[in-house]
Parts: sequence; C-alpha cells; structure tokens
Amino acid sequence: MKVEYINPFIKATVNTFKGFLGAELKAGKPYLFDKGNNDIRYDISGIIGLAGDVRGSVVISFPKLVALKVVSDFLSQEIKIFGDDVIDTIGELINIITGNAKKDLENYRIMISLPSIIKGPNHQINWMQGVPVITIPFESKYGPVYLFLSMKA
Amino acid sequence: MKVEYINPFIKATVNTFKGFLGAELKAGKPYLFDKGNNDIRYDISGIIGLAGDVRGSVVISFPKLVALKVVSDFLSQEIKIFGDDVIDTIGELINIITGNAKKDLENYRIMISLPSIIKGPNHQINWMQGVPVITIPFESKYGPVYLFLSMKA
Repeated sequence: MKVEYINPFIKATVNTFKGFLGAELKAGKPYLFDKGNNDIRYDISGIIGLAGDVRGSVVISFPKLVALKVVSDFLSQEIKIFGDDVIDTIGELINIITGNAKKDLENYRIMISLPSIIKGPNHQINWMQGVPVITIPFESKYGPVYLFLSMKA
Repeated sequence: MKVEYINPFIKATVNTFKGFLGAELKAGKPYLFDKGNNDIRYDISGIIGLAGDVRGSVVISFPKLVALKVVSDFLSQEIKIFGDDVIDTIGELINIITGNAKKDLENYRIMISLPSIIKGPNHQINWMQGVPVITIPFESKYGPVYLFLSMKA
C-alpha cells in the first residue's frame, strides 16, 4: 500500500477528533496488520467501503468504554447505554473521516459506500489473504482508538 | 429500497450456493431490518460496500457451525477450525454474490469495495438511522444463512 494513501486518513482522523470533540489524537506508528498476531481488543467498529481507482475499506474501532466517552463528547450529553446513539455516532465519525481523507486523494477517483457499524464484545475484522492492511493505533484522553486501512489499487 | 435492487441479490446468492456448493438455498420473505427487534444470531459475516449510483452495503452472515459446513463443502475438505480458511471463503462468497448481482443491475453504475470479514460470537451489524436495510433469510441443508442489504440511491 502506498504511503500517500495512508497519511490522508491519519490527518482526517486527527482533524475530526480535534474539530468535533476538541480532543487530541496521537497517532502511533502504522504497521502491517497480521491476523495471526493481533492482540487488539475492540467492541464497536465503523466500516466504509472504498471503490473506484482504489478498492478497500476503512475501519475505525473502539473498546466499549472508549466509544461511550467519545460519543458522550460528540453529543454533549453523557451516554451510558451502548445503543443507537453510539451506533449512529460511530457511523458518522467514519463517514466524516473517510470523506475528508477522500478530499486529499483527489488525484484518485475514489467512491465511498455507506457506513456499517459492527457491535460485539471483542469482535475481529479481517481481510482476505493478499489484501494489504495497515493498522494505525491512536492514543487519546478517551483511551485507544484504532484505524484499519485496506487498499488495493 | 426498490424491489429491483433486491431480487438480483437473492438470485445471485441462490445461484452461488447452487453453482459452487451444489446446495439449494430457499429464500424466505425479505423484511425490513429493525435493530430494536432483531433476534438473528450469527458469528461470522462478510461485508462489501457499494458506491456509485447506489450507495450501501451487502452482508452475508452465518452462525459458526453453518459457516464451517459451508466452507468445508466449498473447499472439499472438512474444516473444523474457525480460522483463515473460513475468513477467506466467506470473503470469496460475498465477493461472488455481489459481483453477480451487479451484473443484473447494469442500468446502474455500481462499484464494489473489497470484502471485509467480521468474526465474533453473536456480533451484530447495524446501520445508521434513515438507511433502509432489508433482511433476507435463507434456509439450507447447512442451516440458516442471512443476507442484509442496505442501499440508498
């Protein structure tokens, strides 16, 4: 996967958290996803498909408690129930992030799908063999946030 | 969601199971997905995003034991481990189904993403408010199989 694909997504994620939540996200070093050696835990994920010149998907994943804090700040009210508010907000976040990253990739004709949101204690998102996937770990005041980027030109 | 969007996916799912597995899938009546009233259980899902004239996603979901039987038939060897073979095969199945349905929707410019595969005991796929989603339940000799179709023109 080309580095020029990755940076727009890091930038869009950081800017979205800054702009909508006033929160600093600190991006860790991106690394190749290895499903055989993956100890990241998360309970909710937002996923968007990419089609066109580049095909793939963008996933943002959160542990439950992190998601509840992020969504509470996003909605400016304390959200304690892991329900519809969380689903809609995580969908909105991956939508904004992917839409903004796309603007920085204007040399490519990339089209994006609608978001789907996956809930499940410690679920795992995977990709087929041969698809390059990058994990980008972020630290925040809420706790860890993960971005997964799969792309094939 | 227009009915003309739904039938190609039903047909493609039935034909894929027939063609690759020699298995009859019996489609139940499609119904509107209602996340507040959803008692379907599944442990692995393949998801593909749709972009272009129609945006949305296509998801195929299986209980674990059903997936193991389907993948065993697909690979012509008994698969007992819920691992990489299952992930790749479920990804392949949703890829074939979506690709074939797209051929029947040639009046629309629809582009498809790469598949992602979600594993997790009893995870749930959701969509944001306002996105119409259809559940299509199928019966098979393996057990139940579910297709979820979200689309917005």
